Amino acid sequence: VKLDRTHGASQLARLSLEVMRAASERCKAASLEDYVAFMKAVADELLSARPSMASITNYVGKLFFEINRRSMDGDLSSVRGFTKAKVDELIGESEAAFRKAAEHASRLIEDGVTILTHSYSSTTMETMRQAVGFGKRFSVLVTESRPLFEGRRTSGELSKLGVPVTLIIDSAVGCLFENVDLVLVGADSILLDGSVVNKAGTYLIALAARDRGVPFYVVSEKHKFNVRSYIGEKPILEEKDSSEIVGRETSPSVRVRNIYFDITPARYVTEIITESGTIRAGEVAGHMEEMLKQTYLG
Amino acid sequence: VKLDRTHGASQLARLSLEVMRAASERCKAASLEDYVAFMKAVADELLSARPSMASITNYVGKLFFEINRRSMDGDLSSVRGFTKAKVDELIGESEAAFRKAAEHASRLIEDGVTILTHSYSSTTMETMRQAVGFGKRFSVLVTESRPLFEGRRTSGELSKLGVPVTLIIDSAVGCLFENVDLVLVGADSILLDGSVVNKAGTYLIALAARDRGVPFYVVSEKHKFNVRSYIGEKPILEEKDSSEIVGRETSPSVRVRNIYFDITPARYVTEIITESGTIRAGEVAGHMEEMLKQTYLG
Repeated sequence: VKLDRTHGASQLARLSLEVMRAASERCKAASLEDYVAFMKAVADELLSARPSMASITNYVGKLFFEINRRSMDGDLSSVRGFTKAKVDELIGESEAAFRKAAEHASRLIEDGVTILTHSYSSTTMETMRQAVGFGKRFSVLVTESRPLFEGRRTSGELSKLGVPVTLIIDSAVGCLFENVDLVLVGADSILLDGSVVNKAGTYLIALAARDRGVPFYVVSEKHKFNVRSYIGEKPILEEKDSSEIVGRETSPSVRVRNIYFDITPARYVTEIITESGTIRAGEVAGHMEEMLKQTYLG
Repeated sequence: VKLDRTHGASQLARLSLEVMRAASERCKAASLEDYVAFMKAVADELLSARPSMASITNYVGKLFFEINRRSMDGDLSSVRGFTKAKVDELIGESEAAFRKAAEHASRLIEDGVTILTHSYSSTTMETMRQAVGFGKRFSVLVTESRPLFEGRRTSGELSKLGVPVTLIIDSAVGCLFENVDLVLVGADSILLDGSVVNKAGTYLIALAARDRGVPFYVVSEKHKFNVRSYIGEKPILEEKDSSEIVGRETSPSVRVRNIYFDITPARYVTEIITESGTIRAGEVAGHMEEMLKQTYLG
């Protein structure tokens, strides 16, 4: 999970839940107390592996909260069984949200449009897959997305779906906006005020979209809402190893910063499409409150 | 000249003049008429080699205009001598303009600032070299500039000057603006309305600069003013081979467009720093008119 660069936030959240299930199965704890402590250690490890990804925090945090609560009035075997059932339930929930958000978003794609997207997002890809399934015809402009070129994967998958696709460097998005009808991107997380944490470059695309009067849509399941921002915590923007950007040819006195994420302010976000339908950036806080209530009080 | 990717517009203009001088020396024409026809063919070849670069158009066009005028009342030997002298004069003019524009621009660099620059620009580099010479201390944030990573050259040269430099991917410019005091970029050409043709990505940086309230400066000698835009011609934005972006691993059904330049609208340009000093985008048209008069009527 920590090293993964090829899966989106959605997929990594489910992978993290599977890690929790495997940990529960293999845990050799003899007492319930040891079991809970072990599961907490695994959960903490997962939470710190990808601090930018709210979906991991939400699902793993929710799972551990429930394991802990259940341990108050159960024995080791029943709590272990509960963990397995809860993981299955949360993975099912996440998959349903993923498909539903994509279904809502696919309605934005009208026949004949050109979509600009950035990097690779599994929810955005699912949106376009469903649109193709509904018989929509559209073309897509894809950024290569340095440093690891996730855009090549996006363009390859779209091309296999029969969608006409054009691949460009990240810097060229401003050159082709006259042909773009809408921007559609995913999210790594969404903050309290509706601003969007996503792959670096998303903010620049949002600025260009506003400058050209093109709508900027974000498709995101609600489990990517960063509930830590609800209590005022600042988002952690991960940086990765500089070797992804430069090889050995660069002078050692040049500092290289490999910044993975940027924040697109809410004022540039036209709408966020979730499994519950389309919401405006200003409505994120209300949804977050509801989610927190359901998780910890419900 | 056609294939060159490592020199800026300034250097390529001088290189083009040197090609004209070499052509004149090696031309085997027996008559003045043949000589002028040969020089015109070479000039046309140079003009079409890099149609985005106004400086080539201006210098080579001006040189040929003068050769042609001189041929009205001279013999082959005197016109050939005239060509050599004129090339030397224009190269000297260009170098003086280059140093003077950089000198004016270096005054914008105050002690302690952080400058964001994009790609490689010889005039921007000369500006920072002079600022170092004047004892200024500053640091620079440099974009790598896909597809050919000219930013690595920029960061290497700055580092040799002792300037602290940080290299980032093009998409990450939006992540670090809170530390940026000014943007300083070069230009490939400047259009009638003051908008700026430069390496793709410049427009996105200008949008981010405006969004964050950071001044966006362009340092450019006046020979980069695209006088063809004075007569309403649209700028030609070169595209290069897609192999600079992707290797063979990309599906052949994915179209790849390698767009080199974008246009930054004049409204995002704080000031343009030329050899005559600092001008606003709205003043470009007047300067262009003056240049045209001097070249063709003076």
